[in-house]
Amino acid sequence: MLRTQTCGELNLQHVGQNVTLCGWVNRSRDMGGMTFIDLRDRYGITQLVFNITSNAALCMEARKLGREFVLSAKGIVAERSNKNLKIPTGEIEINIESFEILNPSKIPPFTIEDETDGGEELRMKYRYLDLRRTVNKKNLELRHKMSIETRNYLNSQGFIEIETPVLIKSTPEGARDFVVPSRMNPGQFYALPQSPQTFKQLLMIAGFDRYFQIVKCFRDEDLRADRQLEFTQIDCEMSFVTREDILNTFEGLARHLFKAVKNLDVPTFPRMTYQEAMAEYGSDKPDIRFGMKLTELNDLAKGKGFRVFDEAELVVGICAEGCSEYTRKQLDELTEWVKRPQTGAAGLIYIKYGKDSSIKSSIDKFFSPVDLTAIIQRFNSKPGDLLFIMAGPKEKTRFAMNDLRLEMGNRLGLRKSGEFKPLWVTHFPLLEWNDEARRFYAMHHPFTSPLPEDIPLLDTDPGAVRANAYDLVINGVEIGGGSIRIHNKELQQKMFKVLGFTDENAQDQFGFLMNAFEYGAPPHGGIAFGFDRWCTIFGGGDSIRDYIAFPKNNAGRDVMIDTPAGISDEQWKELNIKPLKP
Amino acid sequence: MLRTQTCGELNLQHVGQNVTLCGWVNRSRDMGGMTFIDLRDRYGITQLVFNITSNAALCMEARKLGREFVLSAKGIVAERSNKNLKIPTGEIEINIESFEILNPSKIPPFTIEDETDGGEELRMKYRYLDLRRTVNKKNLELRHKMSIETRNYLNSQGFIEIETPVLIKSTPEGARDFVVPSRMNPGQFYALPQSPQTFKQLLMIAGFDRYFQIVKCFRDEDLRADRQLEFTQIDCEMSFVTREDILNTFEGLARHLFKAVKNLDVPTFPRMTYQEAMAEYGSDKPDIRFGMKLTELNDLAKGKGFRVFDEAELVVGICAEGCSEYTRKQLDELTEWVKRPQTGAAGLIYIKYGKDSSIKSSIDKFFSPVDLTAIIQRFNSKPGDLLFIMAGPKEKTRFAMNDLRLEMGNRLGLRKSGEFKPLWVTHFPLLEWNDEARRFYAMHHPFTSPLPEDIPLLDTDPGAVRANAYDLVINGVEIGGGSIRIHNKELQQKMFKVLGFTDENAQDQFGFLMNAFEYGAPPHGGIAFGFDRWCTIFGGGDSIRDYIAFPKNNAGRDVMIDTPAGISDEQWKELNIKPLKP
Repeated sequence: MLRTQTCGELNLQHVGQNVTLCGWVNRSRDMGGMTFIDLRDRYGITQLVFNITSNAALCMEARKLGREFVLSAKGIVAERSNKNLKIPTGEIEINIESFEILNPSKIPPFTIEDETDGGEELRMKYRYLDLRRTVNKKNLELRHKMSIETRNYLNSQGFIEIETPVLIKSTPEGARDFVVPSRMNPGQFYALPQSPQTFKQLLMIAGFDRYFQIVKCFRDEDLRADRQLEFTQIDCEMSFVTREDILNTFEGLARHLFKAVKNLDVPTFPRMTYQEAMAEYGSDKPDIRFGMKLTELNDLAKGKGFRVFDEAELVVGICAEGCSEYTRKQLDELTEWVKRPQTGAAGLIYIKYGKDSSIKSSIDKFFSPVDLTAIIQRFNSKPGDLLFIMAGPKEKTRFAMNDLRLEMGNRLGLRKSGEFKPLWVTHFPLLEWNDEARRFYAMHHPFTSPLPEDIPLLDTDPGAVRANAYDLVINGVEIGGGSIRIHNKELQQKMFKVLGFTDENAQDQFGFLMNAFEYGAPPHGGIAFGFDRWCTIFGGGDSIRDYIAFPKNNAGRDVMIDTPAGISDEQWKELNIKPLKP
Repeated sequence: MLRTQTCGELNLQHVGQNVTLCGWVNRSRDMGGMTFIDLRDRYGITQLVFNITSNAALCMEARKLGREFVLSAKGIVAERSNKNLKIPTGEIEINIESFEILNPSKIPPFTIEDETDGGEELRMKYRYLDLRRTVNKKNLELRHKMSIETRNYLNSQGFIEIETPVLIKSTPEGARDFVVPSRMNPGQFYALPQSPQTFKQLLMIAGFDRYFQIVKCFRDEDLRADRQLEFTQIDCEMSFVTREDILNTFEGLARHLFKAVKNLDVPTFPRMTYQEAMAEYGSDKPDIRFGMKLTELNDLAKGKGFRVFDEAELVVGICAEGCSEYTRKQLDELTEWVKRPQTGAAGLIYIKYGKDSSIKSSIDKFFSPVDLTAIIQRFNSKPGDLLFIMAGPKEKTRFAMNDLRLEMGNRLGLRKSGEFKPLWVTHFPLLEWNDEARRFYAMHHPFTSPLPEDIPLLDTDPGAVRANAYDLVINGVEIGGGSIRIHNKELQQKMFKVLGFTDENAQDQFGFLMNAFEYGAPPHGGIAFGFDRWCTIFGGGDSIRDYIAFPKNNAGRDVMIDTPAGISDEQWKELNIKPLKP
């Protein structure tokens, strides 16, 4: 090694030792007769000292060193008179006897500090400098810890990691595939996997019993905020299990990660059906760090002559505790906020339950004090609370009310970072009707099993069929989802039929899986976790990009290496393709 | 769980317990009043017993069960009268009280046994059945163990695993890239990485100090035996290191894997320069499980009037111990063998040193007994040995002699399976001259550092420059290779120039890396191991395919899912491409 120690390990025990450190010039200060350099590496920062009295030439050389120069420096560990107890190496410094510039550095385009002056685009272009910032280093260290803890936990539970292929077959169901032209088979393509779904099912059929993989997946989607074209899953599957077994097993994983990574003991995760989640939170991924549940008011709100309520499919409200003093201006601003297209509410009704037990509302014209009191009682409100009510079509109104609930949670500081509230959501609908395509789509994917008791409904009322599917939600973020799978050829065929596949199409795309079902497929199920997102939740960042070493931007570009990019004429020719429009 | 235990864990301690097992019907036998079924799962095989006297109906049902049916069976553990001590569950059996067919099975197209009757093509098509065979299950279990041991060892040494992107940029240096058309950027492509080389170097520049990743890599090569389009690397990089540090660190990894996976204590790995390896073995990846070194004979062989020797650049031989009794027929057959195009020798000379100390050779006409004795002494041969000699151009002759040496090693049983002889080969040439392209190519890749003392030769004699590069060889198979990298922009630019890049090309392809060198790049180096191959060496298989769950065949096809395959017209259109020839 070019060093004897790292910049993070020396302390008073080492005083008097000869050491050689390597690292980057983090900061340099001239103080009268002394020059101090903070030398930084992955492990910490150590102060180097140059004394003009004892070695003028060396000190003059040291003064020429710029930020981010790479040094090897030799000297003797000494106790500092001016100790910095905030860092582990802050009680010592190194009296430098000689040093070597291993590589100089141009002045970096932004400061290498937690609070940097570099904008996102500049930092992405120089991502290798951005990653020198402690905050980013810690993010990737957390990700490493998450992955190694995940692997060791699953290994201890008898899971084996099996790599599934990256060059697979394009299938039209689901999101758009990335495809890879085959040079050796003109006109034919591989596809990159959106998930190893069919392969992990085949591994169950092969008898592997407990499989996992931390694996890259790919979706050629138009990027929304916080999506990446390539992302990482913790992909898992088990045989001879019920839903309960899977929830318990992976609750075990999640609790292990909470303990190992966050040092948190988290109690048993609550469970909620999709139907409950939608009714009580207006969302299939509720943030249960705070209450403020949706409360349905149809029976109390209708028939009082207020058309907005009378004509609505759903009248629903939330109670913002202690907000009765909100001003007209605040209420107007919130009303405008819920009317933004993203939330899409038609309006916002309020009822103020004053600290003095007075009641004031925007519907006083239609609702008597008795009527309003009944509503207040439905919420179990206390004096000082503020109720918000919306009305309209059920789905749309729940959606908007969920938005408002989360916004109020933010404004009232109820969504505390550092607090973690995991939740299992179960009993998802199996199918979603798509008006445009005039057919059902699988809410999860076509291999999800219906609840056994709902199977007869596939023939009579497919939209009502519930899936044996589940999501893990933490703080309102979907961290993972899975299901018990279909393991029976006939049921899988019926499922494809419901999804509008012809028999030929189904056979062509998924024949290998349906054939495999005929050779002794065990009952099985599994789950996949969004690893980037889980890291982000645990680390507390704004974006999954903060937890990816080399992310792409929202246009799907890597601006550091400048890709995607053109390829040579020869490559086009070899691949037997040409541009659609030259 | 649908079971109370697995098929691998019951023994005499469980006698009398009520259990439920799930698994596959491995074998079924009717013996008079009894029916025995071997139920198989990932963990083992347990015998189920049905007694026609105690439950005739159940026994008749059991007799209908076919091979590979999936069962859940309930019963009581009983001691076997006819014990099978070869398996852990062989002392007990289960008296079955009821069972359920979880899934029937068609008759599998080949037997699910270690020695199967299925040909390779059939087994690949039904890979999910092939993987049920114990031999394949064990291979993937070994692979899992290798990967988890690798990760934990490197983690314990301070390495952090960082995922690098899969959608990167195509570069013309090296093998052919797979490319991925970008829908959002017409005419532009991503490329799949041949290795994370530039990214791991950027991670060193970012200060991560010790990186690793077990990662899929891709090469669009015409497939030779035992290559896959996608393969897995253990990719590693370190900063502030010399070659010695890297060899010691990864010798540590290799020794850990030998111990953890093979329970072998392997002594310090010997080291050999490329030049020594070529001279003594005719190969840069010698199998040192046996001697039979190449011995050069130019001084003894030339000038005796034998034109073949006199005109040859190199006369070289090996000594096959104890083979002096080889018959004319055997020698002729070996001569034909070395003349096959794969080996390409012009011919084969022999000298028999008989057990009675007689000397007989195919060059008696030119060489006196004294001449022949001198040659025999050069080899330190003993009576009973047989010498083989070849002559011709140095490189070609060494190549052929290496082939013969390995073949003789095989024939004489000197390449023992179960014996492992690792070796570091160092001091590789930096460059290889390519006659066709009339330019130098990087032997390793363009980022490999020359040995410091050879840098001046880059200007005067590039072909003579040695690289600061190294390979790990086990039993004649290259398991990994790496180098100290260039970390200086000027040297990297010079390297690209030697490789025939224009400045513009170099900047266009690798500008991001050379720019990064200007911002404080530390000295660094690393290594990458072929993970599939390492598993194959440790597991002892014939082909890396045996250690890949879903391999592709030699034509790059996955015959199970039938890919590559066509894509829809809509996909072509969205990707802004069309076929070169419609």
